Amino acid sequence: MSETYVAVIGAGEASTAEMADAEEVGRLLADAGAVLVCGGLGGVMHAAARGCTRAGGTAVGILPGDDRSPGSPHLSVTISTGLGEARNAIVVRTADVVIAIGGEFGTLSEIALALRMNKPVVGLSTWPLARTPSSLDPIFRATSAADAVAEALRAARTTRRHD
Amino acid sequence: MSETYVAVIGAGEASTAEMADAEEVGRLLADAGAVLVCGGLGGVMHAAARGCTRAGGTAVGILPGDDRSPGSPHLSVTISTGLGEARNAIVVRTADVVIAIGGEFGTLSEIALALRMNKPVVGLSTWPLARTPSSLDPIFRATSAADAVAEALRAARTTRRHD
Amino acid sequence: MSETYVAVIGAGEASTAEMADAEEVGRLLADAGAVLVCGGLGGVMHAAARGCTRAGGTAVGILPGDDRSPGSPHLSVTISTGLGEARNAIVVRTADVVIAIGGEFGTLSEIALALRMNKPVVGLSTWPLARTPSSLDPIFRATSAADAVAEALRAARTTRRHD
Amino acid sequence: MSETYVAVIGAGEASTAEMADAEEVGRLLADAGAVLVCGGLGGVMHAAARGCTRAGGTAVGILPGDDRSPGSPHLSVTISTGLGEARNAIVVRTADVVIAIGGEFGTLSEIALALRMNKPVVGLSTWPLARTPSSLDPIFRATSAADAVAEALRAARTTRRHD
Repeated sequence: MSETYVAVIGAGEASTAEMADAEEVGRLLADAGAVLVCGGLGGVMHAAARGCTRAGGTAVGILPGDDRSPGSPHLSVTISTGLGEARNAIVVRTADVVIAIGGEFGTLSEIALALRMNKPVVGLSTWPLARTPSSLDPIFRATSAADAVAEALRAARTTRRHD
Repeated sequence: MSETYVAVIGAGEASTAEMADAEEVGRLLADAGAVLVCGGLGGVMHAAARGCTRAGGTAVGILPGDDRSPGSPHLSVTISTGLGEARNAIVVRTADVVIAIGGEFGTLSEIALALRMNKPVVGLSTWPLARTPSSLDPIFRATSAADAVAEALRAARTTRRHD
Repeated sequence: MSETYVAVIGAGEASTAEMADAEEVGRLLADAGAVLVCGGLGGVMHAAARGCTRAGGTAVGILPGDDRSPGSPHLSVTISTGLGEARNAIVVRTADVVIAIGGEFGTLSEIALALRMNKPVVGLSTWPLARTPSSLDPIFRATSAADAVAEALRAARTTRRHD
Repeated sequence: MSETYVAVIGAGEASTAEMADAEEVGRLLADAGAVLVCGGLGGVMHAAARGCTRAGGTAVGILPGDDRSPGSPHLSVTISTGLGEARNAIVVRTADVVIAIGGEFGTLSEIALALRMNKPVVGLSTWPLARTPSSLDPIFRATSAADAVAEALRAARTTRRHD
């Protein structure tokens, strides 16, 4: 009965394609009744929140700063942590699964924290990740927004069954 | 247009009177369209969240632990911070104003952090607070749940006007 | 064999008497081979660090901000947390026992967090603390810097024996 | 006059070669009068702290948990944050420059946070990092412990000159 929480992570300045993917991911998460969690700022975060709340879903933004005002206007709920970059750990900690879209170093830190916490990570055009050339890819590489959401929800079900 | 966020703080184990006050505070915050923020666990937090969401409002719980499962089932949104008691600073940071109901040491730490951050604190049967016998009381002492909510909303309006 | 860590907490702007007490507490902690932990800024924190390191002891400052530059020059080690007021929880978490000297709301939050974490608190002219008029005082009230340090070290021994 | 703080990051379980590199890095940082910061646990963190303090240097461990007991016995100062993985941000925030040795996902999160905070990162057999095949490598790749320390100190001087 309890909802699935999906973090959508990506850069605060994103390409048109990334913004479109993020908005579609947000919309599909709303359709599936999942709660979207993000860093609450611009770019991928903003687009995902907009797609989600426009489709009637719940989008939670977890901000780095001391007040809620820089939060995207498309968030349902805005948390101001005052923790700076340490808030990345909370975005990931709150989620059952993470969808990474594009992204810069902040996104990479969230991917790494998620993998460290044994949370599944689904990627859309995001960081390649292999410690050595022969390492298995720890990220599920999705081919579209719909594929990313389907895989994220599947992975969340599997993970939570074993809790 | 942006909502007022009100933290309702109090002990995880509370008296019948405190629970009734918390539930009424939650209900009145929902009626006023404010977002309720709390620590997400039992006692005052649980009762306030129940009063709020049963009246159609939004209640956000910010948990100390690593997963969302100990959160009250009456929360609209549950954040797991993994920060332990350091999460108290986030509960207060996210709010425009704080209502303290009864409470133990955790509540006292949140009252003190709120005052440190220059956020108004409204108290219902909570900690007395005077550095010296002649100090002014930094807490507005409410006489009922309705009085507490009215004063909190008034203080939030005043504070935010000066932002 | 492992050292005792003692947090010395108090306001960033303190009276002459508080500064003298803090410096003496720092000196005595150094003499006892304890590690002093503080918030790293001015006032009581600065005086305690100075007393400690001038006597050859180790003083650790845990700062709220993003860089080490506002730290007292008398610190042996300076940590910049970037967490704002949430760093108060780390000051207390790192210590075995807390000595509070005077203090404003930030100090009160640290006293409350320490009591919440079941850590002994020794007070020198600090906040009175009683939930009700008949409550036992949760703080050991010291009469001098020497008394405060003696009690803190005694309390730390007792607490750690039961760990 | 103020010291340089160098974070040495790497996995809690490390290979013999990584341990040897970490110990040598710790020793050379002590020789240079730099303060070593690390996550305070085993593997690379333990070896670096041992190399540093055996050579008379200062090694600071910033632990994820609620008490200091899991800290390496070779630390000069042990901080218990109680923040879980969010403590990674503090390790990086406190340092002027980061040396990464080998490492798993936790280390990758610290590399990414350092780059996000515009802090130089020197790598010894650590994660490859390129968002696209044509991206410039954001990590200085050192060929030995001595090379890593020399580059880290050089980068710290350059960075701090511009502060």
